[in-house]
Amino acid sequence: MGGASVTERLGSTPQEEMQHSNGGHVKLFSGNANRPLAEAVARALGIQLGQATVERFPDGEVRVRLLESIRGDDVYLIQPTAPPVNDNLMELLVLADAVRRSSAGRINAVIPYFGYARQDKQTQGREPITARLVAGLLEHVGIHRIITVDLHAPQIQGFFYQPVDELSAVRLFAEYLEERNLTENAVVVSPDSGRAEQARRLSERLGLPLAILAKRRTGPRETQVSYVIGDVAGKRPLIIDDIISTGGTIRRGVEALVAAGAAPEVVVMASHAVLVGNARENLAHPAILEVIFTDTIALSPALGYTILPTAPLLAQAIRRVHTNQSVSVLI
Amino acid sequence: MGGASVTERLGSTPQEEMQHSNGGHVKLFSGNANRPLAEAVARALGIQLGQATVERFPDGEVRVRLLESIRGDDVYLIQPTAPPVNDNLMELLVLADAVRRSSAGRINAVIPYFGYARQDKQTQGREPITARLVAGLLEHVGIHRIITVDLHAPQIQGFFYQPVDELSAVRLFAEYLEERNLTENAVVVSPDSGRAEQARRLSERLGLPLAILAKRRTGPRETQVSYVIGDVAGKRPLIIDDIISTGGTIRRGVEALVAAGAAPEVVVMASHAVLVGNARENLAHPAILEVIFTDTIALSPALGYTILPTAPLLAQAIRRVHTNQSVSVLI
Amino acid sequence: MGGASVTERLGSTPQEEMQHSNGGHVKLFSGNANRPLAEAVARALGIQLGQATVERFPDGEVRVRLLESIRGDDVYLIQPTAPPVNDNLMELLVLADAVRRSSAGRINAVIPYFGYARQDKQTQGREPITARLVAGLLEHVGIHRIITVDLHAPQIQGFFYQPVDELSAVRLFAEYLEERNLTENAVVVSPDSGRAEQARRLSERLGLPLAILAKRRTGPRETQVSYVIGDVAGKRPLIIDDIISTGGTIRRGVEALVAAGAAPEVVVMASHAVLVGNARENLAHPAILEVIFTDTIALSPALGYTILPTAPLLAQAIRRVHTNQSVSVLI
Amino acid sequence: MGGASVTERLGSTPQEEMQHSNGGHVKLFSGNANRPLAEAVARALGIQLGQATVERFPDGEVRVRLLESIRGDDVYLIQPTAPPVNDNLMELLVLADAVRRSSAGRINAVIPYFGYARQDKQTQGREPITARLVAGLLEHVGIHRIITVDLHAPQIQGFFYQPVDELSAVRLFAEYLEERNLTENAVVVSPDSGRAEQARRLSERLGLPLAILAKRRTGPRETQVSYVIGDVAGKRPLIIDDIISTGGTIRRGVEALVAAGAAPEVVVMASHAVLVGNARENLAHPAILEVIFTDTIALSPALGYTILPTAPLLAQAIRRVHTNQSVSVLI
Amino acid sequence: MGGASVTERLGSTPQEEMQHSNGGHVKLFSGNANRPLAEAVARALGIQLGQATVERFPDGEVRVRLLESIRGDDVYLIQPTAPPVNDNLMELLVLADAVRRSSAGRINAVIPYFGYARQDKQTQGREPITARLVAGLLEHVGIHRIITVDLHAPQIQGFFYQPVDELSAVRLFAEYLEERNLTENAVVVSPDSGRAEQARRLSERLGLPLAILAKRRTGPRETQVSYVIGDVAGKRPLIIDDIISTGGTIRRGVEALVAAGAAPEVVVMASHAVLVGNARENLAHPAILEVIFTDTIALSPALGYTILPTAPLLAQAIRRVHTNQSVSVLI
Amino acid sequence: MGGASVTERLGSTPQEEMQHSNGGHVKLFSGNANRPLAEAVARALGIQLGQATVERFPDGEVRVRLLESIRGDDVYLIQPTAPPVNDNLMELLVLADAVRRSSAGRINAVIPYFGYARQDKQTQGREPITARLVAGLLEHVGIHRIITVDLHAPQIQGFFYQPVDELSAVRLFAEYLEERNLTENAVVVSPDSGRAEQARRLSERLGLPLAILAKRRTGPRETQVSYVIGDVAGKRPLIIDDIISTGGTIRRGVEALVAAGAAPEVVVMASHAVLVGNARENLAHPAILEVIFTDTIALSPALGYTILPTAPLLAQAIRRVHTNQSVSVLI
Repeated sequence: MGGASVTERLGSTPQEEMQHSNGGHVKLFSGNANRPLAEAVARALGIQLGQATVERFPDGEVRVRLLESIRGDDVYLIQPTAPPVNDNLMELLVLADAVRRSSAGRINAVIPYFGYARQDKQTQGREPITARLVAGLLEHVGIHRIITVDLHAPQIQGFFYQPVDELSAVRLFAEYLEERNLTENAVVVSPDSGRAEQARRLSERLGLPLAILAKRRTGPRETQVSYVIGDVAGKRPLIIDDIISTGGTIRRGVEALVAAGAAPEVVVMASHAVLVGNARENLAHPAILEVIFTDTIALSPALGYTILPTAPLLAQAIRRVHTNQSVSVLI
Repeated sequence: MGGASVTERLGSTPQEEMQHSNGGHVKLFSGNANRPLAEAVARALGIQLGQATVERFPDGEVRVRLLESIRGDDVYLIQPTAPPVNDNLMELLVLADAVRRSSAGRINAVIPYFGYARQDKQTQGREPITARLVAGLLEHVGIHRIITVDLHAPQIQGFFYQPVDELSAVRLFAEYLEERNLTENAVVVSPDSGRAEQARRLSERLGLPLAILAKRRTGPRETQVSYVIGDVAGKRPLIIDDIISTGGTIRRGVEALVAAGAAPEVVVMASHAVLVGNARENLAHPAILEVIFTDTIALSPALGYTILPTAPLLAQAIRRVHTNQSVSVLI
Repeated sequence: MGGASVTERLGSTPQEEMQHSNGGHVKLFSGNANRPLAEAVARALGIQLGQATVERFPDGEVRVRLLESIRGDDVYLIQPTAPPVNDNLMELLVLADAVRRSSAGRINAVIPYFGYARQDKQTQGREPITARLVAGLLEHVGIHRIITVDLHAPQIQGFFYQPVDELSAVRLFAEYLEERNLTENAVVVSPDSGRAEQARRLSERLGLPLAILAKRRTGPRETQVSYVIGDVAGKRPLIIDDIISTGGTIRRGVEALVAAGAAPEVVVMASHAVLVGNARENLAHPAILEVIFTDTIALSPALGYTILPTAPLLAQAIRRVHTNQSVSVLI
Repeated sequence: MGGASVTERLGSTPQEEMQHSNGGHVKLFSGNANRPLAEAVARALGIQLGQATVERFPDGEVRVRLLESIRGDDVYLIQPTAPPVNDNLMELLVLADAVRRSSAGRINAVIPYFGYARQDKQTQGREPITARLVAGLLEHVGIHRIITVDLHAPQIQGFFYQPVDELSAVRLFAEYLEERNLTENAVVVSPDSGRAEQARRLSERLGLPLAILAKRRTGPRETQVSYVIGDVAGKRPLIIDDIISTGGTIRRGVEALVAAGAAPEVVVMASHAVLVGNARENLAHPAILEVIFTDTIALSPALGYTILPTAPLLAQAIRRVHTNQSVSVLI
Repeated sequence: MGGASVTERLGSTPQEEMQHSNGGHVKLFSGNANRPLAEAVARALGIQLGQATVERFPDGEVRVRLLESIRGDDVYLIQPTAPPVNDNLMELLVLADAVRRSSAGRINAVIPYFGYARQDKQTQGREPITARLVAGLLEHVGIHRIITVDLHAPQIQGFFYQPVDELSAVRLFAEYLEERNLTENAVVVSPDSGRAEQARRLSERLGLPLAILAKRRTGPRETQVSYVIGDVAGKRPLIIDDIISTGGTIRRGVEALVAAGAAPEVVVMASHAVLVGNARENLAHPAILEVIFTDTIALSPALGYTILPTAPLLAQAIRRVHTNQSVSVLI
Repeated sequence: MGGASVTERLGSTPQEEMQHSNGGHVKLFSGNANRPLAEAVARALGIQLGQATVERFPDGEVRVRLLESIRGDDVYLIQPTAPPVNDNLMELLVLADAVRRSSAGRINAVIPYFGYARQDKQTQGREPITARLVAGLLEHVGIHRIITVDLHAPQIQGFFYQPVDELSAVRLFAEYLEERNLTENAVVVSPDSGRAEQARRLSERLGLPLAILAKRRTGPRETQVSYVIGDVAGKRPLIIDDIISTGGTIRRGVEALVAAGAAPEVVVMASHAVLVGNARENLAHPAILEVIFTDTIALSPALGYTILPTAPLLAQAIRRVHTNQSVSVLI
């Protein structure tokens, strides 16, 4: 498996490296957003998750209490801000407040899925830029570093003053596609004309051509149709996106690809399985061969999607951050 | 009615005063926490609520767009941070971000019920002080002033660097009690030995004695019993609290009062009707004569509680803030 | 002309509106980056540029002295951060410091071309995000608002905490193309697969199809070739970019378009004429019919490029900001 | 003695622990507020007080010079902000400035008595919240942590963004009372109805009932009389407060207790002996059996009060902070 | 008199100008440092001092309460930070906190004498820079502007981020000296070789030569002797300094001047009469003809020194700041 | 040689000391301002300069990329902000941004010559205080400490909130002058009456008298003439300044000294050789015997000036900062 092989290639055992720390211990705490992922990261690091109460008062207010001392420690708070995004974000902020007031040495937020990222600009006037707002809230509460996976736009790093270590699932997807022989006679497809960078990187890595899905309004009202820019006739489309939310864009894209003569065996990939609304129906389109996600957002295996684990990658990043080794080699 | 009479006594019509503003117009916007209250405040001010979209994307992310220009205006965002507290708080923060980026002259948060207020200190080590955290988030996003009602602790004003105008429902309760002749042979009761200030003010205003409910642990485990400090025998208890959440403290207090010989015709008052869990059952205790709340949190009249309106008081405060007149006269 | 017609359509004369200001006067100051543009804006507003010394000491240090009082005024500093970018940026910062210490009411930076914008993300590890750095420096010195034209990425707005009013030249280009009948049988071309938003907006506005230029590495070394995604055969390409620097990307794009069968009568448009290195040679390609810029960066008419004036648009924005009217109508 | 037994129970010798520090040495400096306490803390830690000049220029300005290098060290500034509060506070701020500019690793303010704490809220409009102001000044100058004893209100912790380690003398009082057999047939009395938490903790710890002193205005002018809530007849009152300033509240409370039938052998305890105005006279009331303070504020033994030393507790806290061990065990 | 004539020359009556304010009223408040000066400024402005309680609690803590609304007003806090410097500084900070929390429009600190100014650099290592610290404290509490007179070093303006309007008494001294015919055959003398700027300005204004007093150590210990640089033989020395504290430097300088052959009719001038320790004795040297101060620090006329009033100058500055007119004309 | 002997006297070899660091390695990076100096410092420390790209894009924008990991390291950025000052300053800021985003442990700016220092005050109204502005920019970008040499005014340290370690070349000059027997029958001359501190220190160190050059306007226009205060007849003047820019002040000073009878063998010293405009001509005055600079600014030996190396001093400071030893001993 992709993620695991990253660990192997980097070739150091957790036990060895964690002793090289120069002050304070690594402490991992998890909110309620994706505890299985946090536990997998802890296992990969060979340590236990920190003991803490992270629950709700009867009126829904977040209640946090750390059950072990973290004075001077290098603390990592693992919490994707997936739906319910406001609850998960607030848990992260309250955890950070508790950790700061408990005299942590350094507070790192590990946010495998960074919610609100699509609100990264004003599309019309008088709108918030909520991704920047969230970055500001996280820094206000005293977070020193962000570790994340595949931000919606690379500029979001610049919403932070503090360092951001952004990991990518592109390598995981590429390794999986090659392993399963899904790349033959294929074309990488970006589902958005304004943001084809992730698709470009995958196409370059796999040596495959690139096509782009664009949208056009059909009339004065907001209805939009997708159309294909580039040649997809007879090829297997490999659609790659960062987030799949309702799946509507994907379904319309698949239809446009089939209409443009693409082979009806589309592979759909996305780093983050937000999956709300009619997502399951939209992803059940007959021309879709396989749907691949990572586990940055907790996802039931019963849904039948391929799930690539990110814990090895996240654990490597944490280990390298803690021991002051380069994280760039992971990127 | 109490609130209305405050307006009358202050004796100025909205239309007159709102013209005296020295720069920018008053603009009111409401999140989804308590839109009826916001509309009542707007009516009391003789203006319309500002046009804005405040809703959710399919994945639950808050979506805000202002539909009218607020450049240079004196903006008031009305949003109690009642349950669901995280959603309501995030709506307020995102609204403020949109308002700041749209070049408001001044941003005032009108938070009739300030959620997370009970997390105002560390009761044990390694806890957050979430009320201060929330104050910090509100200031970080650019809010210049807070208008609120009956904070859980008066020190919470000091969690803010910016000015806080804190209004009180004590006068509303006192006027109502006197109007209904509920004060004869009565004793004011504070349900918490550590925080009897609100009860003390009511007792002084009504010229009534004061009793206090204290708690004691019965054994090594956390079970607590309430007992009465002070003389309540044969008197009608007027319990006043700032918040009623599950109502458990009130029910145990009523039982202790009855056990101490108080008349079984307890009046229960609280500024903020959080009402979660078994609140309805707990407040249905046969010794409770009447339950009185304000409408800082939206509350169905069908529940049978007396509801004192706060819109006149809030509108007066907004008018006075906007026209640079003293708000202290309201306090 | 496009820009002028915007003013006409909005239909208010400068003299009228500038009297409606609610406190302080408008004061415009210019650094040395593009004084003709600043003068044109002042003329369009019917006022004089503010008197100030903005020059260099013998050792090259920026020397600023304001020669008139600006106490309480609404000050606009007009300075594109075009090459020499560091000198122009420093002039802007020093001007802002002088203006703040001289008790300006509000400091607005009008930065028609925002330099360092292409450094808006980390393309590899261990890089700066200089666009965010510059945003931070501008806010640190006390600038309350940015007025700019066509940022390299819309997310750059989020690098600022303060409001950004971003104007666009797309309307100017569209009006000019239609006026000159250049849109028949044409295709809008984005020169960058990762950033096709500006082209998409132009194509939608003109009802024209969209094609995208992508890049592919030919071997292990960094040499890249451009190729066309989408159908351009027999059509007139209208390439639109935000910045033309050395023109190398444009030249390679034109060659790829011609190779893909496009008509050899390419129209090249960009908001910002940075024009360094071999730009003139690259833009002299025989298949290029016309090159169109705005004047956000000072540009000699002798070069033979079409120059669309932005002063009417900037003056409108300043007038509307100063008089608290909506700027969104300009966007 | 209470304090000493805490040290013994925690059972580690100073010499051992101070070697476990992970970077930088512990350095203690004292202002002039309570040098004997600072010296006692140093002795308990087995180190010398740092060499520094902390004196006045002829015009009264604070003059500070550090006489030894503290580069990279973990510095603790010991200074209760007791009267003369402004001089002592300014000494602390100037010391911190000197320490920061001398490149300390971390600056900890040990403020056994935190002055201005009673100004923690607005009792009427148009007042400062000086306790929050002071917290802000301390953080502005670069202090990373506060170690203090029995804050006037627990919410004051929330006036700080930085961690606060608040120790309590309640355990010292409880141990002393038990040791001297003063708890038999006793009742714990809180002298303030709005702030009975400290009394509640003592009563719970000792298994004793609780009574509360409340105040009532006798007429339209400000004269107040104290009255007792709860049953004290025939019992020995153990009054516990955080601060005794003029002692007027205590004297009136003692009189009310005696009038309510309490035994005329009142024990008066307070953490902080501010003792100004007629304090000595007020505390010489014949019904007062014993007066017990800690030494957070320097206090002459000649006054005849019992003084419980806090140096063992403070030294333990410093040692644990420095060596990254839990301080919660002390609380 | 000098100060008065400045007002006359600028020729506008207070009543006229104060009506031109564009938002909020002028409100003056005074701490206890120099109430007569504050009253003189109020009279010169034709207004009353604001009503406020600024006193001490029994334990010496500063107690402030504003007795009138200042919502939206342009508030000026008049308080030289003269001895007792820490009390006066703290009064100013607490006043500012009260004013900010009471929603002032703008907070201006009028600090005629800026204490701690001589601690403006590190003369050796490990020292504070207290003047910068104080500037930071004032800005932290929310002060938007400083109005002051003759700072010890002009660089202190740069310790503030906010605007500083620094007035000078040099013109007052020059006008007085000319009026009294004290300039004939005179030489201006700077008492400090490292800081002769004020003397240079006076000498240039009066067309007189300049001499400088320097210090030299006589041996390895700190004893210093003054000596004269420049020609003073037979001339009347006009010594000008910003501050006279103990007067020791002045006395030694007078002796050195006499020893160098100067006429024994020295005129001594200083803006700020700190006058501590043996100042009266030192200034009673027989070779001193006259001693001239301003009233930035309260000074008894009974001491026999000439006192030049600064209220006209300060009132002009306040009027011009409030009405957005140039203050530079006063400088 | 002076600098070298400092190292010898302090007597520790680089190799030894650099192992005593308590966390993170020393990493030195250089911008393009004075790479030979940076290399000399690295050699003196026995380490290599860090690998980094610091160059320009075709449009002149600074381009930085670090080519080695610096995670957790103690980074020193060596860059005098000499002409071209804006480019050099911007390189330093961009380097710091890259270093911060790459997770450096601590960022130290080594700025041997601090440009813009002469803009340290407002000489008239409505001017910037650019030295403070630059200090603010450096702190904004995350620099934790400044190491510099001979600031133009000692108060500039106070423009920084962070620690400043200011080294001085006075000792280097004194040692050189004594070694070359240039001090006999000499007088130290300050070229500026307002800033004679450096000269005073040299005169005291060498036991020589002091003279001061002052300026006087000859008429209503700005032309100034220099004149000498103090006795220089027959003596060799040793003029010492911090910066020589155009050399005009020096030339006029030399002429005034010769006119006052000084020996025509003037020694001119300055820490920083800015040398712009007619500097070479001005320094070629026949009465000038020798001109001595340090190498804080890169200077060609071919010009014939004596150059005293500062790398030993800077390296000692870096070593001591890194290993938490006193730097004061160097001052």
